[in-house]
Amino acid sequence: MAVALTILTDPGDAAARRTLTVAPGTTILKAAHAAGVDITATCGGRGRCTSCRVKFLAGLPPPPTIMDEVQLGDDLVREGYRLACQCLLHESVTVQAAPPLEERSFQILGAGQLGRVALDSGVAKQVVKVTLPREEHHQTSDLEQLLEAVGLTTADVGTAVLQGLPQALRDDPAGVTVTTFASGGTAAGRQRILAVERGDTAGMKFGLAIDIGTTSVVTTLVELDSGEQLASVSSLNPQAVFGGDLMSRIAFAQFNPANLRKLHTRIVGLLNQHIEQICRDSGVLAKWIYKVVVVGNTCMHHILLGIDPSHVGLAPYAPVLRHPVTLSARELFLKVAPEARVCLLPLVAGFVGADAVGVALATRIYESAEIRIAVDIGTNGEVLLGSRDRLWACSAPAGPALEGAQIRHGMRGALGAVDRVTVDDDIRVHTIGETDALGICGSGIIDLLAGLLHAGVIDWTGLIQVEARDALPPGLSERVVVRGEERQVVVLRPGEAGARQEIVLTQDDVRQVQLAKGAIASGVMMLQHVAGVPSEMVAELMLAGGFGNYVSIESALRIGLIPPLPRERIRYVGNAASLGAQLCLLSETERTRAETVAARIEHVSLAAHPDFEEIFVECMNFPRPS
Amino acid sequence: MAVALTILTDPGDAAARRTLTVAPGTTILKAAHAAGVDITATCGGRGRCTSCRVKFLAGLPPPPTIMDEVQLGDDLVREGYRLACQCLLHESVTVQAAPPLEERSFQILGAGQLGRVALDSGVAKQVVKVTLPREEHHQTSDLEQLLEAVGLTTADVGTAVLQGLPQALRDDPAGVTVTTFASGGTAAGRQRILAVERGDTAGMKFGLAIDIGTTSVVTTLVELDSGEQLASVSSLNPQAVFGGDLMSRIAFAQFNPANLRKLHTRIVGLLNQHIEQICRDSGVLAKWIYKVVVVGNTCMHHILLGIDPSHVGLAPYAPVLRHPVTLSARELFLKVAPEARVCLLPLVAGFVGADAVGVALATRIYESAEIRIAVDIGTNGEVLLGSRDRLWACSAPAGPALEGAQIRHGMRGALGAVDRVTVDDDIRVHTIGETDALGICGSGIIDLLAGLLHAGVIDWTGLIQVEARDALPPGLSERVVVRGEERQVVVLRPGEAGARQEIVLTQDDVRQVQLAKGAIASGVMMLQHVAGVPSEMVAELMLAGGFGNYVSIESALRIGLIPPLPRERIRYVGNAASLGAQLCLLSETERTRAETVAARIEHVSLAAHPDFEEIFVECMNFPRPS
Repeated sequence: MAVALTILTDPGDAAARRTLTVAPGTTILKAAHAAGVDITATCGGRGRCTSCRVKFLAGLPPPPTIMDEVQLGDDLVREGYRLACQCLLHESVTVQAAPPLEERSFQILGAGQLGRVALDSGVAKQVVKVTLPREEHHQTSDLEQLLEAVGLTTADVGTAVLQGLPQALRDDPAGVTVTTFASGGTAAGRQRILAVERGDTAGMKFGLAIDIGTTSVVTTLVELDSGEQLASVSSLNPQAVFGGDLMSRIAFAQFNPANLRKLHTRIVGLLNQHIEQICRDSGVLAKWIYKVVVVGNTCMHHILLGIDPSHVGLAPYAPVLRHPVTLSARELFLKVAPEARVCLLPLVAGFVGADAVGVALATRIYESAEIRIAVDIGTNGEVLLGSRDRLWACSAPAGPALEGAQIRHGMRGALGAVDRVTVDDDIRVHTIGETDALGICGSGIIDLLAGLLHAGVIDWTGLIQVEARDALPPGLSERVVVRGEERQVVVLRPGEAGARQEIVLTQDDVRQVQLAKGAIASGVMMLQHVAGVPSEMVAELMLAGGFGNYVSIESALRIGLIPPLPRERIRYVGNAASLGAQLCLLSETERTRAETVAARIEHVSLAAHPDFEEIFVECMNFPRPS
Repeated sequence: MAVALTILTDPGDAAARRTLTVAPGTTILKAAHAAGVDITATCGGRGRCTSCRVKFLAGLPPPPTIMDEVQLGDDLVREGYRLACQCLLHESVTVQAAPPLEERSFQILGAGQLGRVALDSGVAKQVVKVTLPREEHHQTSDLEQLLEAVGLTTADVGTAVLQGLPQALRDDPAGVTVTTFASGGTAAGRQRILAVERGDTAGMKFGLAIDIGTTSVVTTLVELDSGEQLASVSSLNPQAVFGGDLMSRIAFAQFNPANLRKLHTRIVGLLNQHIEQICRDSGVLAKWIYKVVVVGNTCMHHILLGIDPSHVGLAPYAPVLRHPVTLSARELFLKVAPEARVCLLPLVAGFVGADAVGVALATRIYESAEIRIAVDIGTNGEVLLGSRDRLWACSAPAGPALEGAQIRHGMRGALGAVDRVTVDDDIRVHTIGETDALGICGSGIIDLLAGLLHAGVIDWTGLIQVEARDALPPGLSERVVVRGEERQVVVLRPGEAGARQEIVLTQDDVRQVQLAKGAIASGVMMLQHVAGVPSEMVAELMLAGGFGNYVSIESALRIGLIPPLPRERIRYVGNAASLGAQLCLLSETERTRAETVAARIEHVSLAAHPDFEEIFVECMNFPRPS
């Protein structure tokens, strides 16, 4: 199953080439480095620069990732450029390494499809020498001397800064570093002093983008001056033990105030664990984190603020507030700089949260001339449809199945997860890290279902075809079993290659996926229906979400997770909610824009729509073979 | 020693009169009520209204108290009007009860010497019916519906309000009461929502004025709409166990951060005790307290904010900040409405704090055409001198002796304290509550020293005249003793009338008082010196401070606590620092003015002045008999 990778290493000399034999699914960069072919990776292969760019000379370039779009821009992507670090090989190709290209500055989100973002986080640092008060008559104060040194006549100063002020000013004769924040951007009027540190720490200016999903929480550390993403941590939302989906979590919170406090404490605790880990991983001190942007669905947002989400769970499912909220890290007990600004993006509706606003910002759907669709896949998925003229959104409560939860052998996309499945005369799997399989993650489940549908192991209603298994190839046939009263497909048996334990797909698992994909597909269909947009009019469907980058678009199309658009009109955009948060972290203009965009989004309540029931039932089924 | 009080009860009939025999020191109101003469006291005899006003027809009206000035105004006071509840009888007089007077509204600080203050606390309440969100499409939120109901497009809303919002809006179909605050006054722009309460609580709108002294803390509950003072609690500052004066308290804080925390926790704990007690006394719920104004010296101010005051104790004694600070009650852990605004008035210098600013506001010294002096007597006393043209201030670190501390048998002015002393051929005492004496308070000590000086028991250097005691009348002579090596004056012996235990004045007590009064007198003298103001140019000396209302001005003059001005140019103004805080509580215009006034005050550092040493030593002595 190996593929051939041919790399032209010298643009001036077509003979300077190497052909490598590579396992499918390897990135070009990894393959090149393994074979000793030098491809520069300034950012360490994290999609944060353009140094590892390659141009496809033969073979089909894979769909661009959001990193390709961001770093290379639309034009280069169309010309067949890709980042070697992002580009997974699935067929034999020939590429040209680092061909001449006007090098642009090293920045994330600085160019490309998302538009150039002027870096202006609102956070500024100044190293100043403060003249200590020395007059006994006509006294001044530490704060006045500080303000004079930084050239401000007035500023908001929190008590945490005041408490540290006398020591900081007197500790280091070399001076102090004053961190200020201007909401709306550094050109804006009123400043807030976030920190005063001894010595020169001007180079240390970091922020966090936090995406709190129902099932997963992702925290990303970003350097505010360069936009560089330094580290990212993701983990399960620890509230999940109190309910896998939003409704059960709301019911738990509703039960008594102690439960709400429990949910609140859990998420704050997890964020502090993330902060600790991300700081350890990157060598950044937590006190150098001055700005935090949080996105998440309405329920997660409310719980983070300690607000009872009960009424979000009852018709008409209205949020307690939709305004953007800014508070100090101290108020939230987040262990970054105590006066760091924690900015929660605005909400659209009870089930269309700040995460949807983040997706809108990152995908620039609000300024698109043509109609686009963004599907944010997650436990509490959301669908956006529209253009610069109008924008609609609805929730698509998929439940956690696509994130591997509530699936017999489901797991997150971590080491040991089956992430790719091929079904021909038997089932073949690939695991993350190529270790023994521990379970199966979302992309694996979708691949598996697509393959089983194709092979006729399950029919369009989702039923596992136990009765007809004899018609299958022997390898496959053996895997279709009934245990107790349960229909199962045995994906892996202990003893098989790559199998440490048995992994099965149950009939119930199939039903869970049908519910999940039904929710998403019917969300898309309903928005098209409400907006009067037939599929021909959809210029592009953008697949977003934590696992959006890993799912096979072909498989997603096959199981009907997304509407049957031509393949080239579908692309991955990665965790767009988190990217939206990063945009707001890096640009106060973007954070200001979030409010305008949120206000523009028209909420469509699926459940309240008379046609929804029928559409949902239809979407639960798999597409019938054409 | 009784005096005669004649009351004309009917202004139209001079024959309608009663003559009562009254013990000196009784108020006219109390005497009248005891004898069954009806004098209306709407406010309960607390100087908060004008209903008990009397006009002196014969006999000298006593110096007006600040309440007389506030309620009656300058003109009426000059015409001989006084409040019967404030007026202590010391000689026989004839008064006319409640003569015709255009009744002004019931308000504190609303008129008189301090000028009419327009009541505008910035706190407003509105009862509204909020339409709950009911649309599933085009959603709104609880907060948006609330803002619409109160007619705001935007407002600052703290998380504590948001957390209670869904419940409050759904609890009572009759509506909710929304409390807002506009910094600078209700006409000012941006509003902050302080509370949303179910039902109609519009009548409940209270504030606290807090005066944190080194030795005493006074908390006053004020109704914001009427200005009425409802209750007041005072107690010892519990930090005193860690040092009686500021310098020893600073030294304690400096020792380690845990000590600073200890001081901080103690004061916050005490304030919460005060709040509990004041609410219990008045029947006001703590959640109805929406605004708190705090004055205090710089060190107390810093400790309340958790700021290390170490550098306030080191030359050049500069504060960490002088700006006014506003924060939420929640941040300070004060148990009033969580989003209540806690406003700390601005500071002038390391040893001239927000209390001095409060005194300046309350006495209106900053707008005086003539030069006035305000002396705030306290452990960390302060002196203000000036007029609308220029204003100077210095600290007068008297130590706690005048508050009864660091005196062998000293105590606060509470039940059982000797508060009045007469010395003729013997020593005669009066105790608060006329119970057995437990100790001697500041006003008693000053009376005692004045009497002993007059009788020749101590000389102008402060030495107790043991050697010359035989020249004294026998009753007095017996009281002058030497025990061990200590010279003492026995004020009370067990078995004497009013004596439960022995109370003595030691030579060391005299020295403590000399230090205290020396600090204050030299402060006044130095300001006169620096400003070039001879005593003839001083139009008035205002005596302020917790015990200012009780001290005998004659005694204070006799011991040289205040400069030898003609008696009629000296008056009591009560606890002016606390009254200044109350002004700012009731009027955002005043609170805004505090900053201008603070900026205008020129700080004079006594210790840094070359002439101070000599003046201080001179002021430690008692005035020589002329």
